[in-house]
Amino acid sequence: MSAQHCDTLLHAGIVLTQNEKREVLHNAGIAITAGKIDAVGDWDAISKEFSAKDERDLQNCLVLPGLINCHTHNSMTAFRGLADDLPLMDWLENHIWPMEKKLDAEIIQYAGAIGCGEMIRTGTTCFCDMYLHEDVTAKLAQGTGMRAVLGEGLLGFPTRRYSNLNEALDLIESLHLRNKKYGTRVTTCVAPHAVYTTNLELLEKSFALAEELDIPWTVHLAETTEESARSEEMFGCRPVEYLHRAGCLSPRSVLVHCVDLTEEEQDCIAESGASVVHNPRSNMKLASGISPVAGLLERDVNVCLGTDGAASNNGLNIFREMKAAALLQKVSTQDPTVCPAQTVLDMATRNAAKALGQADLGSIAPKNIADIIALDLDEPALCPVYTPASHIVYAAGGQEVCFSMVAGEVIYSNGVYTHFEIEELRECSRRIADWVRAEKVRSQTGA
Amino acid sequence: MSAQHCDTLLHAGIVLTQNEKREVLHNAGIAITAGKIDAVGDWDAISKEFSAKDERDLQNCLVLPGLINCHTHNSMTAFRGLADDLPLMDWLENHIWPMEKKLDAEIIQYAGAIGCGEMIRTGTTCFCDMYLHEDVTAKLAQGTGMRAVLGEGLLGFPTRRYSNLNEALDLIESLHLRNKKYGTRVTTCVAPHAVYTTNLELLEKSFALAEELDIPWTVHLAETTEESARSEEMFGCRPVEYLHRAGCLSPRSVLVHCVDLTEEEQDCIAESGASVVHNPRSNMKLASGISPVAGLLERDVNVCLGTDGAASNNGLNIFREMKAAALLQKVSTQDPTVCPAQTVLDMATRNAAKALGQADLGSIAPKNIADIIALDLDEPALCPVYTPASHIVYAAGGQEVCFSMVAGEVIYSNGVYTHFEIEELRECSRRIADWVRAEKVRSQTGA
Ligand SMILES: [Zn+2]
Ligand SMILES: [Zn+2]
Repeated sequence: MSAQHCDTLLHAGIVLTQNEKREVLHNAGIAITAGKIDAVGDWDAISKEFSAKDERDLQNCLVLPGLINCHTHNSMTAFRGLADDLPLMDWLENHIWPMEKKLDAEIIQYAGAIGCGEMIRTGTTCFCDMYLHEDVTAKLAQGTGMRAVLGEGLLGFPTRRYSNLNEALDLIESLHLRNKKYGTRVTTCVAPHAVYTTNLELLEKSFALAEELDIPWTVHLAETTEESARSEEMFGCRPVEYLHRAGCLSPRSVLVHCVDLTEEEQDCIAESGASVVHNPRSNMKLASGISPVAGLLERDVNVCLGTDGAASNNGLNIFREMKAAALLQKVSTQDPTVCPAQTVLDMATRNAAKALGQADLGSIAPKNIADIIALDLDEPALCPVYTPASHIVYAAGGQEVCFSMVAGEVIYSNGVYTHFEIEELRECSRRIADWVRAEKVRSQTGA
Repeated sequence: MSAQHCDTLLHAGIVLTQNEKREVLHNAGIAITAGKIDAVGDWDAISKEFSAKDERDLQNCLVLPGLINCHTHNSMTAFRGLADDLPLMDWLENHIWPMEKKLDAEIIQYAGAIGCGEMIRTGTTCFCDMYLHEDVTAKLAQGTGMRAVLGEGLLGFPTRRYSNLNEALDLIESLHLRNKKYGTRVTTCVAPHAVYTTNLELLEKSFALAEELDIPWTVHLAETTEESARSEEMFGCRPVEYLHRAGCLSPRSVLVHCVDLTEEEQDCIAESGASVVHNPRSNMKLASGISPVAGLLERDVNVCLGTDGAASNNGLNIFREMKAAALLQKVSTQDPTVCPAQTVLDMATRNAAKALGQADLGSIAPKNIADIIALDLDEPALCPVYTPASHIVYAAGGQEVCFSMVAGEVIYSNGVYTHFEIEELRECSRRIADWVRAEKVRSQTGA
């Protein structure tokens, strides 16, 4: 029997498949063709069955599915470290919003490139974004080789991008159509900002649009107790009930933050089949509170992870988010057994794939899409190895990533980005800093 | 005027001096001779004043004092990820203690080498250790180029290292004398394990020895509410009062954890001048609780940072500890302004130097010791830069470190350790894993 040709063969020291059985394979092979996984298994068998021109030696590596960042504002990377350690409203009103108002497509692109650079460098292969100029972010994601699900932020008042709800919904639909040219790699979601920044009509119509286009619908929800109080004032009920009444809770819903939840609200979310995106480090840094993730997991809610924007984190690193998620639940519930490593790794892979409606991501299994990363086991921080899932969640910091592939295409390998030069990011960084400096001068001189 | 010779000249993009005024210099020079800093200042001036054979281009770097890990058990790196997500006593009694009992000098050395490798890789230049076989760790620290303050753990019962208190104290004294051959680079401390594992005589006599030798005295203290309850049962008072009565609270005291503290106990520690070592990630992972760091800082307590051992962390990375410290205080006090970046950076540098009685560490200033690290500003996670202290605490993960120097000697530069080969660590890792596997089989077969 002659060997079957495939595009790429990976020879891995350890593969954490994240398949149904959570199998961990040692000395394993992964055969990939046309962006999909043909087979994964024992190296001796796979290497007999398949041959490829492109064979990669990852024998000293821990190989796993690419991580998925279920909530970010990628181009807020422009504001990383611009202002910290401030009360929330001071930070927003005096630092973030004034700059955000002035963001143009050029800065969105420079900052987004850095954000994608950081995500690739730290093992994220797919991100779900909610921000401005998502057409620019689409081109950018495509250009860096990343997978993305992009939602232009929807607000209940006129912005520079739309003057009313119909225009806003038209914009989403046209982004959805334009993204078709990127195949399944760059797709669209519907992303109303929050209940307190929108209105019932926007929520209902945007949800209907998501149903019509069969794409995810994502919203910031219950981030703080202040948000809950505001919701009660504005709508006579708390945010979860408001969304429930609006008919916006379903398996299509991707609910971001969910910090301030009662037990009943946790039940309501669980019954709806909605997913929750936990952003532990943003919630901690802004002192928003601690999401009852342990309670959500007990109710079988599909919990995923996000970084939020780099302005409030200050990074886009899902490895570090995994560890923070596990540790924060343990200390807040006073129970070291909650959020064990495997559960948290599921959040960043399988659960995220489910939330985004792309079940062929998030695990290394035949017919699934080949979004795959590898960690260098020579890094002292990863020595010795006993339990791979524990190392990924508790020991790795993200920069041990030495290989990354999206849809079978290598996008990063041993310090080299295949789609761009690291020097380009330095130039982006310089331009952003120049722009911020100029804007600051302009605002101080009242120009 | 002809230029003055120095051993090494660093040309840095940004220097975070951590001096009294916390000056941040751009395009700066640092001149170093015989392990000490001659001068730091504007590059044009420094480069006119000094010349050196060894001139280092760190123009695209953020340069700062080497970080200090004030509490670890370095060779517990052998048990990184061996067991996680377990109730404390199950974890200790069934996983850690049985293996720890069997640790010999060889495994201590292999595991310690990996620990030092990780610390160097992530910007730590000095660590304070409490463990077994500290003679081995001394040789090891010296061999890797690190600075260390080493305390053989003191327990109130016979161990394989000593059969009674006098032998234990003799051991400390002889370690202290032997460490003299390493100059100021490897020194000694006195390290009773905890109040509940020792006794009054041990605490008093060990403290007297620390006074006599003029070295730090460090102890685990008030790690959990269970410890406090146990102390009340054993001694009729809580741990802080017990130490206070024993005369063991002074500026020489380095108190590790301090999670379960009343307001009065915080006052007592503040009045004594003792230092506190906060280990946020170990406390979170073991669900021990949250140290009232904000309260201690309000009282001007000298708070430092530690990683604890890699078995309960699972890393030895002070960058990640800084971020965890800041974020945990913010969310637990519901105040985003507490533990700002500069305060946390002080904990890992200046405060730590003070706690260890080595005030010539922890800042880049003339006459101070040249323990210096640099972060690569090309890393996307560090782009763009507005506030260097914010980047160090909130954005950096540690592996952006591209240069490290101890006492003027380069120990790491761009992926290369100057004192050993990375392959040696791989071999250490293999040997530890083999030993753990063999011990597990032995314990299962009752051999
Ligand atoms: Zn957000
Ligand atoms: Zn400890």
